[in-house]
Amino acid sequence: MGVTNKYVTIKHNIDGAPAESDFELRTADLSLVVVHGSKDVIVKNLYVSIDPYQLNRMKKQSASQTAIDAYGVGRVLESDHPEFATDDYVVGLLGWEEYSIVKGGNMLRKIGSTEFPLSFHAGILGLSGLTAYGGFFNVSKPKKGEKVFVSAATGSVGNLVGQFAKLHGCYVVGCAGSRAKVELLKDQLGFDDAFNYKDEIDLKSALMRVRLCQLIWSLNMNRHFPDGIDIYFDNVGGEMLEAAVANMNIFGRVALCGVISEYTDTGRRAAPDMLDVVYKRISINGFLAADHMHSFSDFTSITSDHLRHKRMRALEDISQGLASVPGAFVGIFRGDNVGKKLVQVAQI
Amino acid sequence: MGVTNKYVTIKHNIDGAPAESDFELRTADLSLVVVHGSKDVIVKNLYVSIDPYQLNRMKKQSASQTAIDAYGVGRVLESDHPEFATDDYVVGLLGWEEYSIVKGGNMLRKIGSTEFPLSFHAGILGLSGLTAYGGFFNVSKPKKGEKVFVSAATGSVGNLVGQFAKLHGCYVVGCAGSRAKVELLKDQLGFDDAFNYKDEIDLKSALMRVRLCQLIWSLNMNRHFPDGIDIYFDNVGGEMLEAAVANMNIFGRVALCGVISEYTDTGRRAAPDMLDVVYKRISINGFLAADHMHSFSDFTSITSDHLRHKRMRALEDISQGLASVPGAFVGIFRGDNVGKKLVQVAQI
Repeated sequence: MGVTNKYVTIKHNIDGAPAESDFELRTADLSLVVVHGSKDVIVKNLYVSIDPYQLNRMKKQSASQTAIDAYGVGRVLESDHPEFATDDYVVGLLGWEEYSIVKGGNMLRKIGSTEFPLSFHAGILGLSGLTAYGGFFNVSKPKKGEKVFVSAATGSVGNLVGQFAKLHGCYVVGCAGSRAKVELLKDQLGFDDAFNYKDEIDLKSALMRVRLCQLIWSLNMNRHFPDGIDIYFDNVGGEMLEAAVANMNIFGRVALCGVISEYTDTGRRAAPDMLDVVYKRISINGFLAADHMHSFSDFTSITSDHLRHKRMRALEDISQGLASVPGAFVGIFRGDNVGKKLVQVAQI
Repeated sequence: MGVTNKYVTIKHNIDGAPAESDFELRTADLSLVVVHGSKDVIVKNLYVSIDPYQLNRMKKQSASQTAIDAYGVGRVLESDHPEFATDDYVVGLLGWEEYSIVKGGNMLRKIGSTEFPLSFHAGILGLSGLTAYGGFFNVSKPKKGEKVFVSAATGSVGNLVGQFAKLHGCYVVGCAGSRAKVELLKDQLGFDDAFNYKDEIDLKSALMRVRLCQLIWSLNMNRHFPDGIDIYFDNVGGEMLEAAVANMNIFGRVALCGVISEYTDTGRRAAPDMLDVVYKRISINGFLAADHMHSFSDFTSITSDHLRHKRMRALEDISQGLASVPGAFVGIFRGDNVGKKLVQVAQI
């Protein structure tokens, strides 16, 4: 028993910003029989996640015979694993493909309830949510009333950090890349304020641009945070990180979640003023969601409760069909997405 | 009753590296009578500390009518404070001068015992010691067997970090600026290894030099730390910080104590790869000794015990006479000092 499995892969390793032409859709025959004793699980993928960090692996990897790994949600077709049965909904590390074989059921998790849309488990109730929750609560250790700055604030993680921070009683300002996103943050997600980081910046010289950005953002932060920033949840790195450190209060904390400005430009580096870091006793903390799995059950029960009572909302941006994956991926580096970017690969 | 008080001050604010000609020795009349109810304490200074961080204030301050603030040890001449009596030995924030008036006895501490040389209280048993102790134990949270890298390792703080780290069962490598210092670290202070950061670097182009330094230091670290660095105690910032981050293990910690490479060159900035910081979950923590006062009594009792049993040694570099202050200060930016730099202002 077998199917033809469509999958998305790269033609060659990617240097710099990705283009749709770097990707191709291929097919391979796939047996739907699981080997007895293997604990393998065959999943029909429903939603696959599109995340900036996936680019980092594409830089090193050359043309591949297999799909790009991606977090996602699916339905079990065949299982040799005692914890998973046919037709269970599951979430875990799948791939940009129609069907994934999860070896030994590794890191797969069963979705127990269908109270929420399945797509939520790939976003607000999945790794993006845990990243926001772990990074904000465990890494930044926020106190009520603290001033929180979030970059890429309409992104999959940033919008959730802002929502968690507001619910925690913090003052929250976000930055994003368009006027519509700024309005969304203020009007629909409850951010106290927001600004467009692309405003007023239209210079030819890259170096001038970088320095001017740093200055303008710093002034913006100074305006929005007359009392300084206590917590910066950083998704972008680069000069935004420099500007945030310059505006931080003593004992300020940076939760360093991603460095999207460096993903597509390896020559670009943040150079925060370390004199500020010393004198203001700032801590800059890199983290990965994987280190916060111990918080997963707290995170899902709290977040589910917030969703149930409409205290949080899921911001999703879903494209249809596996063929839309390359365009969706390229788009996130242009800031096309609003909220969690997913591709729906199949209906059920 | 009065004296003529000699003091060292700056002629103008200092931009870049300091020169002896930036300073001058002045005199002022000083009354030796304390005002009743003021709690003021008049101290005859014996040892004053010479520290790189003092330059940061000189950058902002213009010509001053008063001495430069400096940590030091002295003898009480007159006191309106109930905790201090004439002839008590004290340590605290004094100045580059013969006599200091400590308003309200603010932050002054009595030296209870003369078991150790008085100068020790301005160094290994004073703020330098607390900086090393608090930064190493409280900020870096070391575990036995971890690999520790210390820059400016023969400096006032660095040499103590290395000694504490060895006593804690860590593997310790230091870097310093001469062959003699490297030998000292290995032969007399028990460092497992050390290297000279000036070796092999003699290039005209500053930018080339910076990049080459980073490369050479990175290779050096790679050689000395085949299993990576767990803790970097950073006294210098700049490209050394970049090289250390590049060689760090997951969950590595940087205790950022000072940024001497930036003190004399405001254009110079460390730009560690934040992608490394995220993926290796590195934390970069600025700190000041002042935040570790709660550890002071533990620190002094433990360190005194180590000194008593010859498990630690005080590395001191003492110049004689107030007139030697400018030369001593300028010298620390050239790396002239070996260990804690002090100036002895008076004998008793």
